[in-house]
Amino acid sequence: MSIKKTYNVAVVGATGAVGRKMLETLEKRQFPMNELKLLSSKRSAGKTVMYNNQSFTVEEATPESFEGIDIALFSAGGGVSQKFAPEAVKRGAVVVDNTSAFRMAEGVPLVVPEVNEEDIKEHQGIIANPNCSTIQMVAALQPLKAKYGLKRIIVSTYQAVSGSGAEAIEELKTQAQDFLEGKEMKAELLPVKGEDKHYPIAFNALPQIDVFTDNGFTFEEMKMINETKKIMHDDSIQVAATCVRLPVFTSHAESVYVELGDTPSVEEVKALLASSAGVTLQDNPDEQLYPTPLQAAGLPDVFVGRIRKDLNQENGYHMWIVSDNLLKGAAWNSVQIAESLVKNNWL
Amino acid sequence: MSIKKTYNVAVVGATGAVGRKMLETLEKRQFPMNELKLLSSKRSAGKTVMYNNQSFTVEEATPESFEGIDIALFSAGGGVSQKFAPEAVKRGAVVVDNTSAFRMAEGVPLVVPEVNEEDIKEHQGIIANPNCSTIQMVAALQPLKAKYGLKRIIVSTYQAVSGSGAEAIEELKTQAQDFLEGKEMKAELLPVKGEDKHYPIAFNALPQIDVFTDNGFTFEEMKMINETKKIMHDDSIQVAATCVRLPVFTSHAESVYVELGDTPSVEEVKALLASSAGVTLQDNPDEQLYPTPLQAAGLPDVFVGRIRKDLNQENGYHMWIVSDNLLKGAAWNSVQIAESLVKNNWL
Repeated sequence: MSIKKTYNVAVVGATGAVGRKMLETLEKRQFPMNELKLLSSKRSAGKTVMYNNQSFTVEEATPESFEGIDIALFSAGGGVSQKFAPEAVKRGAVVVDNTSAFRMAEGVPLVVPEVNEEDIKEHQGIIANPNCSTIQMVAALQPLKAKYGLKRIIVSTYQAVSGSGAEAIEELKTQAQDFLEGKEMKAELLPVKGEDKHYPIAFNALPQIDVFTDNGFTFEEMKMINETKKIMHDDSIQVAATCVRLPVFTSHAESVYVELGDTPSVEEVKALLASSAGVTLQDNPDEQLYPTPLQAAGLPDVFVGRIRKDLNQENGYHMWIVSDNLLKGAAWNSVQIAESLVKNNWL
Repeated sequence: MSIKKTYNVAVVGATGAVGRKMLETLEKRQFPMNELKLLSSKRSAGKTVMYNNQSFTVEEATPESFEGIDIALFSAGGGVSQKFAPEAVKRGAVVVDNTSAFRMAEGVPLVVPEVNEEDIKEHQGIIANPNCSTIQMVAALQPLKAKYGLKRIIVSTYQAVSGSGAEAIEELKTQAQDFLEGKEMKAELLPVKGEDKHYPIAFNALPQIDVFTDNGFTFEEMKMINETKKIMHDDSIQVAATCVRLPVFTSHAESVYVELGDTPSVEEVKALLASSAGVTLQDNPDEQLYPTPLQAAGLPDVFVGRIRKDLNQENGYHMWIVSDNLLKGAAWNSVQIAESLVKNNWL
């Protein structure tokens, strides 16, 4: 009789929007858990969180918290990852980091399992989870790249507030309620916590996610550009992004234009995506079938619809890609990486 | 002493979302009015509407309603325009039609005054007002086309529900309220009135505006493509559009990628747009300055920001264009055409 191996897992940032989804996903997937340790910043320590009908008290993370941990899932902000991920690695843990702290670092695999699972085995202790808007895009485009080649991507995003955390969800709710009651909306958080200027998000659209870089693109846009090339192992892909925050709670949508290395028919593109892992095709104009953020929320897949040929470029295609930013865009992709580590003995 | 000439004006669809804005705009502009006649379908006849502190009763439109009318502004749906615009013309009126009924018809000028005002004088009784999402895009791009040439446009839109009329505004309000109270949202109108399937718009994003055409693009998308070429008198411009409805009440936003015939610097593009009629530049990343739908609502201009060079195409530029869809996108553009008719003696 074989005894199933189990692992000691730490979740850092357990009380955040993504942290809670990580716990839900680990539970749903029946991750082979021995010990579960919930960690956070000082501010959230002492809170209790349920896992498998059991109450866990969240502890403040210290370097020593990671003694005996096999896998540490981080989602408590870049500063926390920078401080504690190396401490966790030093103590023998493998870190799956959901922040941007190490994504572009040499020697840190940046992984979407449907695209580059093999990169996981090259890890030196830290594996980075890409930006939410990048993950769903590359998951949908990888099958096209593999079969036809991928030359160019121009993407405009429609992103949910939950990408900015639990506070942003509350801000949207409060503003929407105030607006409907004829009160003035108070903007204190979005587009970016800590920036000088804030705009209301309710019944609005904000063309800024993260701070601006010198070239006029935001960091969010540059993440989509740079991370796509790293995940796909191809610096020659031309990528451009415009990232926009919407009054949507969950799921990012993306209007994507691509130029391929070949000229398949729309039916061929649809057939390929329909048979690709992690992708669900929802595309039938005759039945008004296409993905929307509300419908995708709570589901693990990447949904693709509105696929059509550009009217001028023979190798140009337009499509609409939607996925739950807290699941495939964060928690589910992190747990997939953890499952791959375990399944392949890559710890 | 000169006596200022005045005109008999009919507004058809006076009780709709656009019709009300037409009246507000005529009043604000002190349009040289002799007689004002408010017309509508049978359903809205009998309602009263204020103009210049005077109460007007809306009458059901008949062919005879247009006797003695100089200018008729239509915004009561394509069917009403198709039925009554020719009757108005027969009786000597010039029609400015805000529906899609005649936009692509031979001999009907399709006009955005900042782009092709001269086309107005070629009219044979009907002048068409373009689709709202087209108007703001061509108004912002025309200065670039004139100075540098315009080869290609790829646009993804972020459109307000008021583009679907007063009922859609109510649907968004009701759904948002229901959602915040934890009730189920009822979807009965959007994305398209009369279609089989309806999706909630509150806290969602719908990649369908108008019905689908055979090539997989929606009619709204094909309007942007075809109308742009007609207004700009240039069939060689490559245009692609993805049109998306948002939970926003007023103002459409557009993420626009263009390829020009030259390679000006971003500063040159900004300087040109800053000095262009009808366009307001709102673009300073250092101060988080860019247009948003909420800020643009109620204002006549087209606002442009987030201008930056593509990182690969030397002649490629990205920008974010926002305007009030009921004003520049509809009522204000129609009144501009009426003012041009009067000012230039083109009646």
